[in-house]
Amino acid sequence: MRREKLVAGVEAGITSRQGLIAHGRGEAFDYLIGERTLDSARRATEAAASLLLAAKKPVVSVNGNVAALAAAEVVELGGLLNAPLEVNLFYRTEERVRKIKTLLEREGAERVLGDKADARIPEIEHERAKTDREGIYSADVVLVPLEDGDRCEELVKMGKKVVAIDLNPFSRTSQQATVSIVDDLERALKNLISAVKEQKRSGESAADLLGAVLRGYDNKANLREAVKEIVKRLKEDAEGVQAVPGS
Amino acid sequence: MRREKLVAGVEAGITSRQGLIAHGRGEAFDYLIGERTLDSARRATEAAASLLLAAKKPVVSVNGNVAALAAAEVVELGGLLNAPLEVNLFYRTEERVRKIKTLLEREGAERVLGDKADARIPEIEHERAKTDREGIYSADVVLVPLEDGDRCEELVKMGKKVVAIDLNPFSRTSQQATVSIVDDLERALKNLISAVKEQKRSGESAADLLGAVLRGYDNKANLREAVKEIVKRLKEDAEGVQAVPGS
Repeated sequence: MRREKLVAGVEAGITSRQGLIAHGRGEAFDYLIGERTLDSARRATEAAASLLLAAKKPVVSVNGNVAALAAAEVVELGGLLNAPLEVNLFYRTEERVRKIKTLLEREGAERVLGDKADARIPEIEHERAKTDREGIYSADVVLVPLEDGDRCEELVKMGKKVVAIDLNPFSRTSQQATVSIVDDLERALKNLISAVKEQKRSGESAADLLGAVLRGYDNKANLREAVKEIVKRLKEDAEGVQAVPGS
Repeated sequence: MRREKLVAGVEAGITSRQGLIAHGRGEAFDYLIGERTLDSARRATEAAASLLLAAKKPVVSVNGNVAALAAAEVVELGGLLNAPLEVNLFYRTEERVRKIKTLLEREGAERVLGDKADARIPEIEHERAKTDREGIYSADVVLVPLEDGDRCEELVKMGKKVVAIDLNPFSRTSQQATVSIVDDLERALKNLISAVKEQKRSGESAADLLGAVLRGYDNKANLREAVKEIVKRLKEDAEGVQAVPGS
């Protein structure tokens, strides 16, 4: 069903064809982690919620795959965080930016950036560097579901905290981000929405929560946990291969 | 470059959008096996060459990804084996069949089947069951680079020997095939062409070669080898994660 959503996204001019290939890579890693949320991803999600709630200027980045698969979720999250969404495309065309902006607004988004493109991320090739000055460019915390490794790295170099959602624990995005949620996009966003609601309800100050959460959080250790889970599952599956009758 | 070839294939009406997602899944597994041909894949390739050379009616199946990425290779292989190519699409449209047939003929293919669709693979949903009576339907050995699991299973149930090329050692296609080459499409086809040429040059009868090769060949063991390689690499990579400075 997700594949059909994405293919429909391509037909609607929202998702890029390269986005379909990227989705396939994610599917393979999702299969390897067992198509469920790992404990390590839950810990990352808690940390991400605290980071985003404590941010002065959080921004939620939205690309073509996110728009096709999880528009409602990013709109809800933006509302909860009082954060603008920014359309941020690797294969940028102004038409695609416009279409995604319209889609997000139709889903109820109050503030969608990305069409001004009046600032540049340093060290990134021209078209891919475009960003909004009042958005990602000046944000202190950026949520990037499905981001390119180069851009993630540059955002971190600009001094931003980056929360990534990426199924590949080895990707440069996962490796570079401040908090890497190794999970499927929709599962991760739903969990993040719950965690943000929970932390808001708790009544504690965002700064206190952030301190408490980050003291106990190690992103690299978390990524290693995800790899361990994959290895564990592969070994079980390999035994399955062995056990097939008649082999 | 391969991604661009595939995207161009979609634009030309040769590759399906779902084919792009499938390619992405393959890319993830190729990354995990280190983007190189494993020893187990070399053994599978030798066995596949013998099976195809000893076949009475071999057929090489061609889908949209194969046409976009490796038309020259399948045409050369068909020529060496004196085997027809058959256009065999999971998301079949007559237009796409025609375009792929034209592409293969332009690459020099002498005999391209798949447009008659005058037979059905049993137990498969109508559109996806279509095949040519004089092609895959009556073949004794079928090479399926990138095949759907259901169809692979039914081909085996029909009593055919199936050679699969599939980067996912856990896929139902890999699990069901007689000989599963866990390798990238282009690397696998190039190696298969070399192995066929080598075995033809050896002067031994195809039947003798087949006997000798298959006595020493265990497809399930080979698949387990591929999984072991993935696990080994993941563990090395996990150490890499640990070793990143500043973590």
